[in-house]
Amino acid sequence: MLTRAFGAYAADKPLESMEITRREVGANDVQIAIAYCGVCHSDLHTVRAEWAGTLYPCVPGHEIVGHVTAVGPAVTGFKVGETVGVGCMVDSCQGCYACDDGLEQYCEHGPSLTYNSRTPDVPGHTLGGYSQSITVRDKFVVKVRHPANQLAAVAPLLCAGITLWSPLRHWNAGPGKKVGIVGIGGLGHMGVKLARALGAHVVAFTTSEGKRQAALDLGAHEVVVSRNADEMKAHANSFDLIVDTVAASHDLDSYVNLLKRDGTLTLVGAPEHPHPSPAVFPLIMKRRSIAGSTIGGIAETQEMLDFCAEHNIVADIEMIAASDIEAAYARMLKSDVKYRFVIDSATL
Amino acid sequence: MLTRAFGAYAADKPLESMEITRREVGANDVQIAIAYCGVCHSDLHTVRAEWAGTLYPCVPGHEIVGHVTAVGPAVTGFKVGETVGVGCMVDSCQGCYACDDGLEQYCEHGPSLTYNSRTPDVPGHTLGGYSQSITVRDKFVVKVRHPANQLAAVAPLLCAGITLWSPLRHWNAGPGKKVGIVGIGGLGHMGVKLARALGAHVVAFTTSEGKRQAALDLGAHEVVVSRNADEMKAHANSFDLIVDTVAASHDLDSYVNLLKRDGTLTLVGAPEHPHPSPAVFPLIMKRRSIAGSTIGGIAETQEMLDFCAEHNIVADIEMIAASDIEAAYARMLKSDVKYRFVIDSATL
Repeated sequence: MLTRAFGAYAADKPLESMEITRREVGANDVQIAIAYCGVCHSDLHTVRAEWAGTLYPCVPGHEIVGHVTAVGPAVTGFKVGETVGVGCMVDSCQGCYACDDGLEQYCEHGPSLTYNSRTPDVPGHTLGGYSQSITVRDKFVVKVRHPANQLAAVAPLLCAGITLWSPLRHWNAGPGKKVGIVGIGGLGHMGVKLARALGAHVVAFTTSEGKRQAALDLGAHEVVVSRNADEMKAHANSFDLIVDTVAASHDLDSYVNLLKRDGTLTLVGAPEHPHPSPAVFPLIMKRRSIAGSTIGGIAETQEMLDFCAEHNIVADIEMIAASDIEAAYARMLKSDVKYRFVIDSATL
Repeated sequence: MLTRAFGAYAADKPLESMEITRREVGANDVQIAIAYCGVCHSDLHTVRAEWAGTLYPCVPGHEIVGHVTAVGPAVTGFKVGETVGVGCMVDSCQGCYACDDGLEQYCEHGPSLTYNSRTPDVPGHTLGGYSQSITVRDKFVVKVRHPANQLAAVAPLLCAGITLWSPLRHWNAGPGKKVGIVGIGGLGHMGVKLARALGAHVVAFTTSEGKRQAALDLGAHEVVVSRNADEMKAHANSFDLIVDTVAASHDLDSYVNLLKRDGTLTLVGAPEHPHPSPAVFPLIMKRRSIAGSTIGGIAETQEMLDFCAEHNIVADIEMIAASDIEAAYARMLKSDVKYRFVIDSATL
C-alpha cells in the first residue's frame, strides 16, 4: 500500500513530501490511519544523521495517534474505527526475559524501533509516523481512551509521556514521596504533570527564571532555579527520586546531593559529551544511586494512557503542518516550544 | 582510666607507644579489654592526615575484638567476660530516620566514629582500637560468637566484613543471583567469602593474573582478570550486582556493561581522584544503576557476625606486633598483605 509521508533522502537534505510503501496487513497486524504525530528530538538527530547509522530515505516520528482502518485475521484486541496509538517500538523478540517481563524496551535482542530499524518490509528499514498510514503488529498498538478533541495532545504521551511514566512508576513516585523533575521541556513538562497526578510532592528544576511560573502552572508544587545555589541547598538530602531529562552535559553532583538516603537520580537523556564525573563520596555516604531509564514497555504505555485519560492529562502542544517541520526543528533547537510540536497528518 | 595505646602526635611523626585516658564507665557503657585490632586503609589515611581534619594525638583502629571488663548499671545486654566487637562507630544521634532504621552509618547528624570524631571525653576526640582498652556505649557493641582461637581473624569483620555484607544484603545477593566482587584485597576477599556463603554465584575480578588461584581458594566460582577484554566480554549483561572495592580511579563502564537489566554497580571505595565519567547510554539502555554504600548499621553488623560464626567465616590475616605497624602500612600500600593485618594488643 502506498501512503504519503514526509521524510529526507539524505542527511543534508531537508524533509520533503514522499510516497512510501506500507506492508500488506498480516495476520497479527493493525493498519492505522495516522491523525497526529508528535515531534521528538530523536527525530531530528536521526534524520540529520547526528547519531550513527541513519538509513535513507528516513521518515521520522514515533508519537503516533490514529484510527484503525484494518486488522489481520488473528487480531482480537482491536477493531476498525478504534482510536489507537503507536510509540517508539513496533516489534521485539517476544522471547527474552525483558519481553517476558513486559519491558520490550529492554529486549535482549533490541526492540524494532518505529523508524530506522531493519525490517524485511520495503525499503528494508522501518519508516515512522510522519505519514498518513502505518501497519503495526497488534502487540505494539495501544488503545487511546481520551476524548476525540484531545487526540493531537495525546500523541506526545507515546514517547515523552512514557519516558517519564516508566521511571516514576519503577521508583515508586506517589503519595509521601518527594520527586524532582530536571528540565522543563517536552519530557520534563510531562514529568511534572504525571508525578503530580501520581500524588508525589513535585519540585521542578529549571535553569531559567522565566520558566518558574510555567512550571507551577504545569503542576509543580515548587520550582527551583538550579543556577541559584541557595535555592538548591534548601532542598539538600530531601528527594526520593529526581528524574533528569536534560540531555546536555551538566553537573550531576548538585542533584545527587539533593537526594535523601537511598534516593535515586535517574537519567533519561544521553548527552553528546559526557557529564562531568559524578563524585563518589555523596553516593557512598547516603547509599544513593545514579540510574538510567528509557521509554517504557507496552503494558506500561497502556497503563500510562489509561491513567492520563482518567486524570485528563495530555501534553501541551503546538500544532504544525508537515511543511513547517524544518522551522519547528529550528525552534526545538532553541528550546522555543511549549512543549511539543505535533504534526497534523491531514497536512501531509 | 589510663591505658596503653599506639598512635601518632603529628602527621609527619611515626606511630609510637603512648598512654591515653578512657572515660569512666557510664550508665550505658561497656568497658572492653581489647584483644585484637585490624588495620584498615582508613587508619593510614587518617593518621597521616591524607584526608582533611585529623586531630592529634591520633590513635587509629576500628576493627576491635575483646572482652568485657565492666558494664554500667543500665547495661542489660552485656556482662563481664563476654567476647565482643566494636567497629567504625561508637555513637550516633539515635533520633533521625537513619538511626530509627538501624542504619546508624547514615545518621543524619553523622555517626560518632571510633577514632577522630569530636567527643566530650579527653582529649576531645575519639581514640581508636590500637590500644588495650576502650569504653563504648552499649548500643554500639556487638557480640562475637566465634570460637576463642578465631578472634584475631574476626577483627576485620567489624569494618571490611560489614562494608561488604551491607551492600550484599541490601541488593539481595543470594541463591540465583550472580554477584561480582572487584578487587581482591582486605574488602574484596571478605566480599567473595560472604557472597559465596549467601548462596550467590560469585565472580571475582582482579587486575592480577597472579591472584586467580587465590580468589578461587577464597570461594569464587569464577575469576576474571579485568585487563583481559575477552574474559570481561564473556560476562556482558549477566550480573545482578557488582560490588567494587577498588579505591583507585578506574573505568566503571567496563563493569556497568557486565550488569544485566536493573543490575547495580555498588562502589564501596572513594577514589582520591575521580573515576573517568561513566557513560550514560549503558545505564539508560538496561536501567542499570551506579550506587554507593558505606559500612553497615549495628543490627546488620550483629547479623553479619552471627552469620559468619554459623558459617565459620573469618578474615585471612597476618598477625603483627604494634611496633610493626609502620612496616605493615608500607606493605599495605603495595597491596602486599593477604588480606588484613591484625595487631595483637598484648604487644602494646
